[in-house]
Amino acid sequence: MSRKVDVPVSDVRRFLEPGPVVLVSSADRGDTDIMTMGWLTVMEFTPSLVGCIISSANHSFGLIRRSKACVINLPTADLIDTVVGIGNTTGAEIDKFAHFGLTAEPAVHVAAPLIAECHANFECRLVDGCLIDKYNFFIFEVVKAQAAARPKHPETLHYLGGGAFMVSGRIISRRSKFRPEML
Amino acid sequence: MSRKVDVPVSDVRRFLEPGPVVLVSSADRGDTDIMTMGWLTVMEFTPSLVGCIISSANHSFGLIRRSKACVINLPTADLIDTVVGIGNTTGAEIDKFAHFGLTAEPAVHVAAPLIAECHANFECRLVDGCLIDKYNFFIFEVVKAQAAARPKHPETLHYLGGGAFMVSGRIISRRSKFRPEML
Repeated sequence: MSRKVDVPVSDVRRFLEPGPVVLVSSADRGDTDIMTMGWLTVMEFTPSLVGCIISSANHSFGLIRRSKACVINLPTADLIDTVVGIGNTTGAEIDKFAHFGLTAEPAVHVAAPLIAECHANFECRLVDGCLIDKYNFFIFEVVKAQAAARPKHPETLHYLGGGAFMVSGRIISRRSKFRPEML
Repeated sequence: MSRKVDVPVSDVRRFLEPGPVVLVSSADRGDTDIMTMGWLTVMEFTPSLVGCIISSANHSFGLIRRSKACVINLPTADLIDTVVGIGNTTGAEIDKFAHFGLTAEPAVHVAAPLIAECHANFECRLVDGCLIDKYNFFIFEVVKAQAAARPKHPETLHYLGGGAFMVSGRIISRRSKFRPEML
């Protein structure tokens, strides 16, 4: 992986709108966790908002709710077995960073650690928890974003259910067909 | 396209969780519209909930808010120019079904028409509008789902911003690595 560079937080849609599975890291009171997440959406460019479902059955739920923060990490396809392993174990029983040999790096704005092995890392603060009790729906603001400088289009994983993943394929540009204000 | 068959509404995650661009059709007071949408997430299996952002600047916003319904249609990669065209025009000026040569089929549970040319069609009713004013965020329940019987994995479009799309690629199964209750 090439070195990471800062990305404007208003640009995270480039990474998240295509719908990849992400790894969410969190920390609270000396405990850390990582969860696999597939139910998330971009909600706004500025402020940079992301909405997502975190099941209350997940060990990460309490850490994120109490600390009001997390890091959304973007894994590439070569990490598929790590992604599956993280999704099929619980942080109540194991230290996922240690168990899966992942490197925890300090974030700048939140207590949750970044996962160094991921292509991109988005530091997030909880900005609206009004739908947590009803839907387990968290609204985060991305307060810092960084990504590997290359490749521009990493191979990402997209979950289909039933243990199957789609790997991102070819890129097609239709830029010339867009009105300027839509770009 | 093979004929469409009913799909359990709890299975829509198989189509939407991978993050495709969708076409949202709507109808109200004799007017219809179609919009291109990329900001959506699955929120629950049962009831089958989908959350999405519909900009208030979009002609569809009023139709969907007033009718409290829409159809989420899943286009395949061969429809890329239609998807781009729909996203770069407004239903305030043109009839999108006519302009793009799309076939409106009656839905069963909602007034909004299905787009026949799409691989799958999900009839949706608005079930929670509490975040519309603040975020343009709509929470829908999918009340009927149908999809072409084949192919099992259609080529879908995933928007990257800047006029570029990722086309869905190869499928990898890790089913044997999942705990049964996670499938």
